[in-house]
Amino acid sequence: MSDRRVNVGIVGYGTVGKGTVNVLIDNANVIKEKTGIDIFVKSVADLKINEFDDQFLRKVPNKYTDADMIINDPVIDIVVELIGGYNAAKKVILDAIEKKKHVVTANKALLAVYGTEIFKKAEEKSVQLGFEGSVGGGIPIIKVLKEDLAANNIKEIYGIINGTANYILTRMEKEGKEFDEVLKDAQRLGYAEADPTFDIEGIDTAHKITILSSIAFNTIIPFDKVFVEGISSIKQVDIDFAKKLNCKIKLLAIAKKHENDIEVRVHPTMIPERYILSKVENVFNAIYLVSDKLDRTIHYGRGAGGLPTGSAVAGDIISIARDIICGCHKRVPVLGFTKEYRSYFPVKNIDDIRSSFYLRFMALDKPGVLSKIAGVLGKYNISISAAIQPGDYSPGDVVPLVFMTHETIGRHVSDAVREIDSMEYVKSKTVVIRVEGAHRG
Amino acid sequence: MSDRRVNVGIVGYGTVGKGTVNVLIDNANVIKEKTGIDIFVKSVADLKINEFDDQFLRKVPNKYTDADMIINDPVIDIVVELIGGYNAAKKVILDAIEKKKHVVTANKALLAVYGTEIFKKAEEKSVQLGFEGSVGGGIPIIKVLKEDLAANNIKEIYGIINGTANYILTRMEKEGKEFDEVLKDAQRLGYAEADPTFDIEGIDTAHKITILSSIAFNTIIPFDKVFVEGISSIKQVDIDFAKKLNCKIKLLAIAKKHENDIEVRVHPTMIPERYILSKVENVFNAIYLVSDKLDRTIHYGRGAGGLPTGSAVAGDIISIARDIICGCHKRVPVLGFTKEYRSYFPVKNIDDIRSSFYLRFMALDKPGVLSKIAGVLGKYNISISAAIQPGDYSPGDVVPLVFMTHETIGRHVSDAVREIDSMEYVKSKTVVIRVEGAHRG
Repeated sequence: MSDRRVNVGIVGYGTVGKGTVNVLIDNANVIKEKTGIDIFVKSVADLKINEFDDQFLRKVPNKYTDADMIINDPVIDIVVELIGGYNAAKKVILDAIEKKKHVVTANKALLAVYGTEIFKKAEEKSVQLGFEGSVGGGIPIIKVLKEDLAANNIKEIYGIINGTANYILTRMEKEGKEFDEVLKDAQRLGYAEADPTFDIEGIDTAHKITILSSIAFNTIIPFDKVFVEGISSIKQVDIDFAKKLNCKIKLLAIAKKHENDIEVRVHPTMIPERYILSKVENVFNAIYLVSDKLDRTIHYGRGAGGLPTGSAVAGDIISIARDIICGCHKRVPVLGFTKEYRSYFPVKNIDDIRSSFYLRFMALDKPGVLSKIAGVLGKYNISISAAIQPGDYSPGDVVPLVFMTHETIGRHVSDAVREIDSMEYVKSKTVVIRVEGAHRG
Repeated sequence: MSDRRVNVGIVGYGTVGKGTVNVLIDNANVIKEKTGIDIFVKSVADLKINEFDDQFLRKVPNKYTDADMIINDPVIDIVVELIGGYNAAKKVILDAIEKKKHVVTANKALLAVYGTEIFKKAEEKSVQLGFEGSVGGGIPIIKVLKEDLAANNIKEIYGIINGTANYILTRMEKEGKEFDEVLKDAQRLGYAEADPTFDIEGIDTAHKITILSSIAFNTIIPFDKVFVEGISSIKQVDIDFAKKLNCKIKLLAIAKKHENDIEVRVHPTMIPERYILSKVENVFNAIYLVSDKLDRTIHYGRGAGGLPTGSAVAGDIISIARDIICGCHKRVPVLGFTKEYRSYFPVKNIDDIRSSFYLRFMALDKPGVLSKIAGVLGKYNISISAAIQPGDYSPGDVVPLVFMTHETIGRHVSDAVREIDSMEYVKSKTVVIRVEGAHRG
């Protein structure tokens, strides 16, 4: 056996497990050429391993139904957790760390919710924990934040980081169809899961921005402090108004660092069409960073899929393998900051966050209604940057009345909308969509 | 002195030297928090050092006019070459390597032309050579290719990697002005140098794609084999026709790996407006990669400037500092491939490269002219995908006649154009612009 060989055991043979095995075995030569290291997939474990068969799996010597066979194998250097979900995955990771194995995972849900415990244990046991595949699929972003941008204070993050939601919004915009119809078709085509809740309700996006902002801002973000609103209530009429305002609606994860606190939030967001982020379509992902010295960067690619995510997982394995061969420990801290410097920043309440807003009121088309609504907005100090009142309705109809506001505090808007929604000539709940960058170049 | 301190000496205090010192000193705290390492700027050397003064330079203990003071200082761990140009910079780098110092540089011209000698010497002496700042300013791309994408075969690279050229093309497109006028204004505003040749004639772009493709394809590209055509002959009329064809004209660096050879070329290129690359405007840069497992990624940001490039240089310094503290040598090979696996792929002649083409003929508006020109194209097996013959001319005028071709060999086009240009009713040299992606989704 070569002294430049690193043994890998993979737990979980779903889409990403299969993709990772494909990448490591199909490209073993190119990895060897680049690193001089043999990355050897010694074992794969999956409860249903006996049901799987493919040309790459056939080259793996050991196939188990029990992950412990990998965790307890003394020659395994790196355990790769690709089961997904919480309990079983967490046990695999913690047991592997306990046995002083390095760990690679793509499990964003687990890291967002139980990250503190896992990161702490990895630090204690001086093992490495790679999780590039947990955000943005194959897009290099975790390592970019931890290493390439290490000389920067990261100020802001804007991410389109859920392919399913972006696919649905793209099709709604291009085809003029409503959410439910596009979702059904996306499920039929395999772009959305049978239970699409995590993707369409923003939870997956919130998991990912929790991870990104923890690294970027050197803090542990309590996942339950992240404001989350999904796209299931987005209507075609709002996409149309967005077009009239030269905007697109995207499910955006937003994180910003202020002097004494941070904001982390996920919600449908109107962004100007001239922004490159607005051109990120279908299942593609993009992360837009603002750093103090580097300024703006965008990192774009496939945010999911077995091979792209497998490429990120393999990248982590290679990086750890290089350290193993070098005899190098703790080269880069698990979260990109050394433990002794970790800070705690409170997460701003959504009501305290400044933003511009798109407001669509549904009101009776009667004289004076517009001025009364505008009057309430004024009372709450909300100033209006644009208004649209479509002309093609008959008097007495319930008509949409659209305002774009200048930047204001979330609480002012919720207070004003509550008051407006209680007016007798306002006929349904006002639609509120936050706007980013309306005033920027 | 802390045992986690790394001493840096910077040679050259121009835009990037100044930016690097700013980044390292202004963000010394954040770098310490992330890495646990004190990156200490011990010395700066510049022939005119006595003419410089700023708040960061004042914090540097040693200021020299002679780079040898840094190279010969035994406590300096990393020498940073930011002089630019060939001779003096090369001497600094080779002397520093000879003294077993690690080297960081942003000098693309030097690496593209004399890279082989420099890379070889760095490998021989087992020192590291960082050059993230040489391509795409602050955009993480070199390390991304060498590390994050190490599990991939890189297939294709498309880069907008010269900010000056992109700025001029963007203004020509938005303002309808001709090249000379925009160039003059760009020079006045500091976006183009007094001698803009390297930028507008594609030479700087060619330097950068030489470096990127050497890393991506595991080969040494002889710089003089790279086909280079600049933007100085781009006319407003062609930008207008591009718009009619739903395209934009960008100065693109293109590199593709084939089975037995590679193509590396720089030229004005028409790309479809729906491509994200077409939205990269003004001084911004973007590199679009196609990899076998990861598929498409885009890496976007500021391609020049003291602070963005200084951020990339500082990133290299940090990476080497982590290795020094770890006691880790040769963790990642200088060019991303281990020496024993370096390959040699011949560079395809531009005439043998397949592409679609935009052809603008200037011909007398007489019956039969179009069919005669189309006849010559047919004779050379060039098939036409679109044609535009504007109607607003008087008979007998010299009129533009535009064809878009399907994919064909460069030689066929040059042969056909030579024959067409010798026709009596063709009144000026035909404009030939390559087209990428016209047929792709």
